[in-house]
Amino acid sequence: MRLWLPGWLRSYRRAYLPGDLGAGLVVTLLLAPQGLAYALVAGLPAQAGLYASIAPLLIYALAGRSHAQSVGPMAMTSLLVAATLARLAEPGSGDYLALAIGLALLSGAMLAALGLLRLGFIADLLSEPVLAAFTSASALLIVLSQLGPLLGVQAGGASLPQLLAGLWKAADGLNPLALMFGATALAMLLLARWLGEPFLRRCGLSGPTRQLWLRLAPLLAVLLGMALVAGLGLRSVLPVVGGIPPGLPAPTWPGLSLDQWSQLALPAFFIALINYVQSLAVAQALAQRRGDEVDPDRELLALGLCNIGAGLSGGFPVTGGLTRSMVNAEAGAQTQLASVVAALGIMLLASFAAGALALLPLAVLAAMIIASVSVMIRFDSLRLAWRVDRADAAAFALTFVLVLWLGVDSGIVAGVLMSLAAMLWRSSRPHIAELGRLPGSHHFRNRLRFAVESLPGALFLRVDESLFFGNARQVRGEALRRLAAQVGTTRLVLIMSAVNRVDTSALLMLARLDAELAARGVTLHLAEIKGPVAQRMEGGGLLTGFAGRVHLSAQAAWEALAAARRGGGEAHTL
Amino acid sequence: MRLWLPGWLRSYRRAYLPGDLGAGLVVTLLLAPQGLAYALVAGLPAQAGLYASIAPLLIYALAGRSHAQSVGPMAMTSLLVAATLARLAEPGSGDYLALAIGLALLSGAMLAALGLLRLGFIADLLSEPVLAAFTSASALLIVLSQLGPLLGVQAGGASLPQLLAGLWKAADGLNPLALMFGATALAMLLLARWLGEPFLRRCGLSGPTRQLWLRLAPLLAVLLGMALVAGLGLRSVLPVVGGIPPGLPAPTWPGLSLDQWSQLALPAFFIALINYVQSLAVAQALAQRRGDEVDPDRELLALGLCNIGAGLSGGFPVTGGLTRSMVNAEAGAQTQLASVVAALGIMLLASFAAGALALLPLAVLAAMIIASVSVMIRFDSLRLAWRVDRADAAAFALTFVLVLWLGVDSGIVAGVLMSLAAMLWRSSRPHIAELGRLPGSHHFRNRLRFAVESLPGALFLRVDESLFFGNARQVRGEALRRLAAQVGTTRLVLIMSAVNRVDTSALLMLARLDAELAARGVTLHLAEIKGPVAQRMEGGGLLTGFAGRVHLSAQAAWEALAAARRGGGEAHTL
Repeated sequence: MRLWLPGWLRSYRRAYLPGDLGAGLVVTLLLAPQGLAYALVAGLPAQAGLYASIAPLLIYALAGRSHAQSVGPMAMTSLLVAATLARLAEPGSGDYLALAIGLALLSGAMLAALGLLRLGFIADLLSEPVLAAFTSASALLIVLSQLGPLLGVQAGGASLPQLLAGLWKAADGLNPLALMFGATALAMLLLARWLGEPFLRRCGLSGPTRQLWLRLAPLLAVLLGMALVAGLGLRSVLPVVGGIPPGLPAPTWPGLSLDQWSQLALPAFFIALINYVQSLAVAQALAQRRGDEVDPDRELLALGLCNIGAGLSGGFPVTGGLTRSMVNAEAGAQTQLASVVAALGIMLLASFAAGALALLPLAVLAAMIIASVSVMIRFDSLRLAWRVDRADAAAFALTFVLVLWLGVDSGIVAGVLMSLAAMLWRSSRPHIAELGRLPGSHHFRNRLRFAVESLPGALFLRVDESLFFGNARQVRGEALRRLAAQVGTTRLVLIMSAVNRVDTSALLMLARLDAELAARGVTLHLAEIKGPVAQRMEGGGLLTGFAGRVHLSAQAAWEALAAARRGGGEAHTL
Repeated sequence: MRLWLPGWLRSYRRAYLPGDLGAGLVVTLLLAPQGLAYALVAGLPAQAGLYASIAPLLIYALAGRSHAQSVGPMAMTSLLVAATLARLAEPGSGDYLALAIGLALLSGAMLAALGLLRLGFIADLLSEPVLAAFTSASALLIVLSQLGPLLGVQAGGASLPQLLAGLWKAADGLNPLALMFGATALAMLLLARWLGEPFLRRCGLSGPTRQLWLRLAPLLAVLLGMALVAGLGLRSVLPVVGGIPPGLPAPTWPGLSLDQWSQLALPAFFIALINYVQSLAVAQALAQRRGDEVDPDRELLALGLCNIGAGLSGGFPVTGGLTRSMVNAEAGAQTQLASVVAALGIMLLASFAAGALALLPLAVLAAMIIASVSVMIRFDSLRLAWRVDRADAAAFALTFVLVLWLGVDSGIVAGVLMSLAAMLWRSSRPHIAELGRLPGSHHFRNRLRFAVESLPGALFLRVDESLFFGNARQVRGEALRRLAAQVGTTRLVLIMSAVNRVDTSALLMLARLDAELAARGVTLHLAEIKGPVAQRMEGGGLLTGFAGRVHLSAQAAWEALAAARRGGGEAHTL
């Protein structure tokens, strides 16, 4: 029951009502054109954007925790959907829509499963520079993809080369009327952004109110555009949204083959990842305003259910939008009742205002998208990364180029791999110290820094990092190199005091190193193995192979080796 | 000059000649049917397999370092090529061949670039369990893909569902003659494997000679098959390799659009990765027999050049094959001259024996492939991983299932991500200790383990791992939780003595945490920042924000905070 009677409803106060109602209304008016526009970005019929705005809002209100999170279609997600489906079906076909619905269902199921398994850490697959690069490059691709509708031409494509080639080819068919509408709307929106703030301040409006009005500027452009099309009867000469079947979405299940589901699996995972990261960032920004905490696993579950809901009602993948959620909060949303109101608003629009929405000029929608995503093209993260960590800067640059060049879907895979490769690279060269004994003591120290004594024929190496697949090969190579540099060494002692964890790859490496050394007449000894590491070695059956060659401490190894040489006093100072 | 006059040639001895010539001849006879078979696995015309066997052998002889490495078409690589191209073109079309050549060129260029940049560590993107799972699942897919030719039917597919559906649909058209040939060949090969060893031992052959003869068993099946087809005139009733245009490959450059190149980029990277890992494993196995060392970066460069050569001569991606290289070594190869001989042998076969090769029954080739890859289906790595590390076992199981279900191309992406996610998961929960001061000293220790004194209103936390994008979020969350658990705390001191590295994401987290804490009336202090970390913080402009709140030691932080409370003596023991 706790899930289905959300906290905000149980502790609802009457004082919240005006704020929630107002915010719900404002979000409705903002969400309707956004939904239509992002459905078109995704290559889907416009009404899918309305359908994707209803169930998710209601489901988040029930399952989510953030007070003002507004879940629905978003630009980057829609571009990912378009890039994925471009490879699998013809835009406009029934298969294309079914696959989009499949993406929502599959990514939703993955999100919900990750939430239930408490695997929220997957958001960390993306480092900040890679996420910033991905966002900037996607925004640039979205701007380019909207130049077609802005000019009134048909031009598709999922990557920079495709988009530029498409625009080049289509440039002849430019529609001057569309360009006029688009350019005027874009100019209005940019002027509002640049000059609106000082103007509204002079009108005596407070900070939050000014922000709210400025964020609603797109609405004005949209209403103006519709009014002009209706008043001047431009429907036949200007590309408009057109034919939205009035009414509410019916429950749907996409008729996909097992093979089609398989092809969606990997793209669905990356869409889930990007949607979760976006949505979590919004939830955290909202929580910070109130000093709340965010439960990432709960957000995962809620977002997953929202996407399943979007799919079952004929929509496509959805996520939390920053602008929309901020508008919601600034318009006075106190609880998720605002989202319930917004969902009801969209339902009313879909039922009774489909005819009006159909008059919306595509060029005005394109201008609205361009104005809103162009602020996402930012390079301050690259500048910071350059000063802090060149590997991060390289990851930013490569991700940015790859997203533009390959499109968002391959670009995100490349970006994640880049983050992880940079991490792997950093941890792949662990510090390895050659140890000796401080004369007259049981203490072992780095030979480079202390005057220590050594045991003839024996090499003591301390590995200063946990062993795993990312550094096992390097550790083996380094051990062999150090050994080769000291002719006459017949015993290698690995001091494992700093090794907190080992994985299967590391154990296989140790077994292989042991065999290799034995073939060269060198015996491998281990010392100071930590409890959990010893347990794993025992599980892997490796400890039996090392019987008699595992020592509690470096000193114990020293004594055993010295005794084996039949003269404990052979140690000499270097 | 050093690159083009390889070491083995400069120090060549006459005594090597018989071994090199013999091994070259043996490899020729083994490689020819392998090349044809793997070309068919890749969905390419059979002669592409011969072409891909010439230039790479010659180039490796010049640029490679391993004495017996035999580079050429391999089963897993061919399956990857087929899975990638299935999405992009119709098998048998000119585009398909051009894309295969493009894959060889692109993956070759990537390998060579990684080698020149000394980025050999990318082989570590794959952990041992994930690689084992990938290999086993691919081998299973290859076996299934060869059931079609074995039964004499046309059935394609890149994943388990596709292959099973294809076989199911095609089962009606079964060709009994093909099945007879295939089943007989398969039985011969399996009997040779199970009973050959004891039989040859009774014949008084030495161990290495027995191994060599057993590995040449496929040759016998192939020759017998060709002889029967020729003798009984079965060419019209039995599917055979057919029409190989005689002659040598001409230099080619695939006419691909920029867009097609882009689509190949990511698959080419994964093919490069898998080819490099395979080839490196072979080089290491060969080096271990001689006590040599392998230079991974040099192997990368050599393999890259081999693939570029394969592409320029009409072939497809190639790599080092373990069986073939072992045969080469056991047949007496002393230097890469053996590979030069093998390349000349293939050139002669392509020029003068194309007619004979064309008679090879596809069912026999299928039997040969099934027999050779079926030994790669192994689960011992899963058993080991299960005992050592459950995360590794889960990575094995998931990779295995995903490769079967999605096909090799998506499966390898999923596998790499799985390895890295497991690593991320392990390092995402760093140990954080709450410290106090040992009474009467300047030493700070874990409060859970020592009777230490604390400073009222101050919380001292030591993070025991480097900070990076994979754990930044968790560290922030944990710090906030610990803080919330101690009401009245207004100072948080992070002891950074165990933080060896920070990246951009970690610095952004620190800045955000600082702002969040400030909003709650808590000041964040830092102590014992290591040199490289301080340098990065300074580069990121973060140190200025922390001016006056960075302390050399925990003791210095204690004194400063105590002084700020206007009474250094307020400390009390808990």
